[in-house]
Amino acid sequence: MTTTSMRPHGGTLQSAPRTSHRPRSSHAQSVELSKRQIADLEMLVTGAYSPLNGYMVSADYRSTIIEMRLDNGTLWPMPIVFALPEPLALHVEEVHLSVRGIHVATLFITERYRADPEVEAEHVYGTTSLDHPGVKAIYEQGSYLYGGHVELHAIEPIVRHTHYLSPEQTRRAFQERGWRTIVAFQTRNPVHRAHEYLHKVALESVDGLLLHPLVGATKEDDVPAEVRMEAYKVLLENYYPTDRVILGVYPAAMRYGGPREAVLHALSRKNYGCTHFIVGRDHAGVGSFYDTYAAQRIFDGIDPAELGIEILRFEHSFYCTRCEQVVSLRTCPHGGSEHLTLSGTKVRELLRQGQELPKEFSRPEVAEVLRRAYQS
Amino acid sequence: MTTTSMRPHGGTLQSAPRTSHRPRSSHAQSVELSKRQIADLEMLVTGAYSPLNGYMVSADYRSTIIEMRLDNGTLWPMPIVFALPEPLALHVEEVHLSVRGIHVATLFITERYRADPEVEAEHVYGTTSLDHPGVKAIYEQGSYLYGGHVELHAIEPIVRHTHYLSPEQTRRAFQERGWRTIVAFQTRNPVHRAHEYLHKVALESVDGLLLHPLVGATKEDDVPAEVRMEAYKVLLENYYPTDRVILGVYPAAMRYGGPREAVLHALSRKNYGCTHFIVGRDHAGVGSFYDTYAAQRIFDGIDPAELGIEILRFEHSFYCTRCEQVVSLRTCPHGGSEHLTLSGTKVRELLRQGQELPKEFSRPEVAEVLRRAYQS
Repeated sequence: MTTTSMRPHGGTLQSAPRTSHRPRSSHAQSVELSKRQIADLEMLVTGAYSPLNGYMVSADYRSTIIEMRLDNGTLWPMPIVFALPEPLALHVEEVHLSVRGIHVATLFITERYRADPEVEAEHVYGTTSLDHPGVKAIYEQGSYLYGGHVELHAIEPIVRHTHYLSPEQTRRAFQERGWRTIVAFQTRNPVHRAHEYLHKVALESVDGLLLHPLVGATKEDDVPAEVRMEAYKVLLENYYPTDRVILGVYPAAMRYGGPREAVLHALSRKNYGCTHFIVGRDHAGVGSFYDTYAAQRIFDGIDPAELGIEILRFEHSFYCTRCEQVVSLRTCPHGGSEHLTLSGTKVRELLRQGQELPKEFSRPEVAEVLRRAYQS
Repeated sequence: MTTTSMRPHGGTLQSAPRTSHRPRSSHAQSVELSKRQIADLEMLVTGAYSPLNGYMVSADYRSTIIEMRLDNGTLWPMPIVFALPEPLALHVEEVHLSVRGIHVATLFITERYRADPEVEAEHVYGTTSLDHPGVKAIYEQGSYLYGGHVELHAIEPIVRHTHYLSPEQTRRAFQERGWRTIVAFQTRNPVHRAHEYLHKVALESVDGLLLHPLVGATKEDDVPAEVRMEAYKVLLENYYPTDRVILGVYPAAMRYGGPREAVLHALSRKNYGCTHFIVGRDHAGVGSFYDTYAAQRIFDGIDPAELGIEILRFEHSFYCTRCEQVVSLRTCPHGGSEHLTLSGTKVRELLRQGQELPKEFSRPEVAEVLRRAYQS
């Protein structure tokens, strides 16, 4: 398996300059950030969204939507904008970005412009339906956009995760361990044996695994991040070669953007120093908005050298009672009646009823974490 | 995973020209071929040893031994020679190669020279010990060598295998199925779940699998080829997605040459049209002559573009009672006491005693084929 270069997207890691707090002036206005805005800010200031060093100006916003590229031609799949439902006063030049009342970063406005949520939804999400949580979010966030670079004053109030590792920290960790190839795994769901299967298949050919659960804002019916992290921990302790795995959180908010978001996930993992990225079925999808393999096919149209991170595509995987092991549609010849699959809805139902998850579906230690969480 | 070019080694497939039988002349001598010689001839005439189109002349013989290259610089790891224990009369210009009395091919002698088995053993096999079956074979085959190209008259007496597929036939089969990436698996042993694991891990990322058991001459205590083929067939029928697997025999004789033979195995699978080749632990090894990973490390020193086939390296794999699945040293954190491993000697002992092989070690259908073979 080839080693892809570990260069960040666009060439250099754009972590925000750290400066002292700016005194409140008549040109500044404080804005308390939403959970989703905090997630975006964290991605921006740590360099996880390199080459972006701030919120998009209109040329990048429009080019990203239509061309899937920044205005300078760099591959980029989704708008990263600072949006407000009401316009700021015209004299405001700086936005003091606040988290629980603490001024953590400053946006220096270079352009004010209006969003075009309908065009954005259609091109980026492939739908304008408000039933799509990503589309709903761009309508709800407001259409007054402010572009400009960001300076960081205090990271601590932004970062509230255990297992927090910035792109610089993961890169250093990979180097210290001597890993030349690292596969990242993104998930927003509890970790079952089917996921473990993908990890371990990948670990047969790469040096290390970055288990990178998304912990930013998600849909309300998704399993809470803390519970998922706890499930990962017991799984790693009991079943993984811990010298070949790093567990770190991926702070982004979930956009449910399917193919476009799969590209965003891949590019930001490249910024974290990974060389390979797992894309399974319906990656970053929601409901039936995207075809099962749309998020894999989008990479067919992208030059691998420009992408700079190798995509490992996986099929639907599950326990097969005939094979007596976890397999996938690529490796198992048996029919669906032999395959143990449980929908997320069914899993939640079993857990709410206090029932056990089959050990072929979920490691008992993981099932216990989930059961406890659902009982309390 | 990248698609390696499917060009044969050296550029073109060198299957032998098929000509009519040559009448016996005073310049010709018939030689009845040994099992090992038949295997070499089959590899030569089908193009499986491309770019060789006959038996090596001295410049290629010496360069292969010392430089691991043909005299023209092409990567080549092991001598392919026509050797006799006694010299042919000087007037002989053609050797009529015979299989069970039938003249199947003609060697047109362009050079007669002497072997240097000691230098060959030392450089190619890394040992001059006669306990090494490959070394023993080069001493036994004789030191009178005859170089020259080969013409084919009749393939049928050479090819006595079911599941016979020439490199041209496998290439056509891959094309018909639309496979762009094909992994070959070489084995001379019965197929157990640990092998199945490697196949299926590979099948998660390549289009097709060429199951390619070596059926030429092997050591006497190796399991007979027919039994192994039968075991493969029941395994495929019961546990493999048959539209993604082709079972074909690899007619070569086993040389037990460890690292050098691993390169030979890889290059000839490239000639069969494969893009990937599995190299596990102690590939083509025997006894304790080679370090467990020597046959993987030799590829570190070879330019991947020159090799032209991607090597998938695998670790020792086995069933783990804690993981409750087949795993490898790369993916399992548990100690050896949890790992079910059986040596070839132990397997043969169990089979001779008519005992069952554990189902975690061997699929029951495979174990039954082996048990029957050992009971009869």
